[in-house]
Amino acid sequence: MKKIEHIGIAVKDLEASNLLFEKLFGAPAYKTEEVESEGVKTSFFMNGPNKIELLEATNPDSPIAKFLEKKGEGIHHIAFDVEDIVAETERLKKEGFTILNEIPKRGADNKLVAFLHPKGTNGVLVELCQEIP
Amino acid sequence: MKKIEHIGIAVKDLEASNLLFEKLFGAPAYKTEEVESEGVKTSFFMNGPNKIELLEATNPDSPIAKFLEKKGEGIHHIAFDVEDIVAETERLKKEGFTILNEIPKRGADNKLVAFLHPKGTNGVLVELCQEIP
Repeated sequence: MKKIEHIGIAVKDLEASNLLFEKLFGAPAYKTEEVESEGVKTSFFMNGPNKIELLEATNPDSPIAKFLEKKGEGIHHIAFDVEDIVAETERLKKEGFTILNEIPKRGADNKLVAFLHPKGTNGVLVELCQEIP
Repeated sequence: MKKIEHIGIAVKDLEASNLLFEKLFGAPAYKTEEVESEGVKTSFFMNGPNKIELLEATNPDSPIAKFLEKKGEGIHHIAFDVEDIVAETERLKKEGFTILNEIPKRGADNKLVAFLHPKGTNGVLVELCQEIP
């Protein structure tokens, strides 16, 4: 794991939150993207070597809609940048972590992603992501 | 704001979580520290330019104990590295954010820190921190 790639924050209203985070960072989102398969609209802010991803649900059955219902707005996941997502998920599986996507899937921002089950990581939803060349 | 300095994760049992995060990162905590004024024991893991801070409460009235009681284990705060914490809190106050520590206080890991009220930041507890020279 090379660094924190991004922190994902679940929000109710992406447009309003974009303005808020623009004030926080002093710069606007560099990208917005809809990921239909996940039922989300996202926006990304750059912060030095790291990013912040805001996520708004686009349908009531999406994981983000369920998260918002259960816990309200707030940090949803932490994503680590990895060199080789297949090797890393195999290493972590051997260490006893539960991999939710044994075959990495395509995520936002041109990434292959896989999640670890939060029950094995102190309640933290951990995402591994590898840039698609 | 220069980068994500660290992510703070509230845990019930620091020793057990240290082993878990050692497996996750493939390297042990580089430092453990007790911050009596905050009622916490902490440990820090390096991850490229970023850190992960694990926090266990040392007394039942500490903010971490209350967080664990209310929300359970998980991500507690996100800390951004700033060049000049006084200038940055002033800038953010003018932008409409509520600063919880108008006079920055001494935090763990040799830092001056100030928090923003999570009601103004989509439920995210944001910490600003500046290295003490």
